[in-house]
Amino acid sequence: MTSHVDTRPLPPFAPGPATSEFDVDTAVSTTGPGRFAARITDRWNALGGGPDGGYLLTPVLRAMAVEVPGGTPLVVSASYLAAARPGEAAVCRTTLRVGRRFTTAEASLSQGDRQVVHAVATFAGPEARVAPGAGGGAAPDVSPPEDCAEPLAGVRLPGVSITDRIHHRFPEVPGWWRGRPTGNASMDVWMRFRDGRDADPVALALLVDAAPPAVLELGAPASTTLRMTVHLRARPTPGWLLARVATRHVIDGHHEEDVEIRDRAGRLVAQSRQLAVLPAGRPLKITGR
Amino acid sequence: MTSHVDTRPLPPFAPGPATSEFDVDTAVSTTGPGRFAARITDRWNALGGGPDGGYLLTPVLRAMAVEVPGGTPLVVSASYLAAARPGEAAVCRTTLRVGRRFTTAEASLSQGDRQVVHAVATFAGPEARVAPGAGGGAAPDVSPPEDCAEPLAGVRLPGVSITDRIHHRFPEVPGWWRGRPTGNASMDVWMRFRDGRDADPVALALLVDAAPPAVLELGAPASTTLRMTVHLRARPTPGWLLARVATRHVIDGHHEEDVEIRDRAGRLVAQSRQLAVLPAGRPLKITGR
Repeated sequence: MTSHVDTRPLPPFAPGPATSEFDVDTAVSTTGPGRFAARITDRWNALGGGPDGGYLLTPVLRAMAVEVPGGTPLVVSASYLAAARPGEAAVCRTTLRVGRRFTTAEASLSQGDRQVVHAVATFAGPEARVAPGAGGGAAPDVSPPEDCAEPLAGVRLPGVSITDRIHHRFPEVPGWWRGRPTGNASMDVWMRFRDGRDADPVALALLVDAAPPAVLELGAPASTTLRMTVHLRARPTPGWLLARVATRHVIDGHHEEDVEIRDRAGRLVAQSRQLAVLPAGRPLKITGR
Repeated sequence: MTSHVDTRPLPPFAPGPATSEFDVDTAVSTTGPGRFAARITDRWNALGGGPDGGYLLTPVLRAMAVEVPGGTPLVVSASYLAAARPGEAAVCRTTLRVGRRFTTAEASLSQGDRQVVHAVATFAGPEARVAPGAGGGAAPDVSPPEDCAEPLAGVRLPGVSITDRIHHRFPEVPGWWRGRPTGNASMDVWMRFRDGRDADPVALALLVDAAPPAVLELGAPASTTLRMTVHLRARPTPGWLLARVATRHVIDGHHEEDVEIRDRAGRLVAQSRQLAVLPAGRPLKITGR
């Protein structure tokens, strides 16, 4: 195992164009001190038919970023407490600590009287430090997106709409897609927004949850996220991003899912880990589509 | 990469003997609704001289577990907001959601008017589901603890006391210990409490942070944790536990640290990931001790 040491500074967060699908559908507006309104759309529905967990996290992160100068998120942990539905939502934010180097806040997204998502995020402060080092990334050793299959395009998956917003190109067409799960729960997928918006750290918090779950390769029909922690490591170069998705341990119906996203230059830009749970009583082998 | 699927149920949490050093030093007592008193000792100080982050998390986790039937933690994320000092502390707990399958709570540990640690944990509810599967772990491919060196034993590291509480046995004596950091930030270490207490899920939340940081192999003198997320995957078998500690990416002075703990049978029992920051302006090469 090699350690990459990279001294390039984390660029400041800049919001995307307010007209992109992602920015329109994750906008928040202030309704009071530490209170925000958001609107959950049905345009980012994932496998299972509900709004994608990464999508739900985004307005929460935006609400937390509003009051942080610079607004560069470094890490966010989200607890998924109840199923969300398209419609109005309220975000309530509390600052835990404001520091010169780091600011930490918590926030929850509620619909009616139900808390749906609770998150804690740490942002870079004005004096976030930089240590010396050396090294960098390497270009991913998979086929470039231009040469990859996009099997999900034009296919109507029941309840799924996130594939209409995000390209998914697979260097190797997944076994689960061909109806033959490989038993090896790992997958590479190139992603980018279909409307051309490039990813910033906030968008990465969605993209880490926008790939199909790796447990599909174990024959699982779906998976429910309990917790997701995202480390936002760098601002990606524009264009395609490569996600490597892997589940190594399924224990008692619970599994982790690790995602690493690299930009086209091979630079690590985000790492996420989920703890998720498989549906009860469903076999890990499926018989194909 | 292979995926391990394990159907053995997660055993219920049982507190350790109330007389162990760990249990005495992490006990909490109720002082009001959702409020607890804790006492931070100087017996679990880590590199840098302050209380270990995993140790600080433990009374917070205990306070959250008090009101959860069964009290088996599945995942906890902790934000480290300020330096702790030995002495009195208060823990304040709020329930986010009580469900049949999962209960989630947040809590903070404060000293005086300073929040030191904020944590969110999810516990197994009475109807936590179990999915079918197959497979298991394999014995670790390193020397057993009986054959390993314990270089930290009997050596007085300035400010460090956690090594008086926990055995650290290295299948390979680390380069940083020999004054020659290898540049490969990964390390295996067998651990157990010196007083013979076996580890349960709550103790695992300390043990994932009780190994020396892997960045010592990059020549870093220390590292400060911003966030730690721990997945508690199974109750370990009694006795020695093997931690594999690795940092793969140092970017802009920030690094992840991944720890996986397996029991003697090779079964994964805990996974943790930290986002941590290196000291400013310190070189990554040190000149030995």
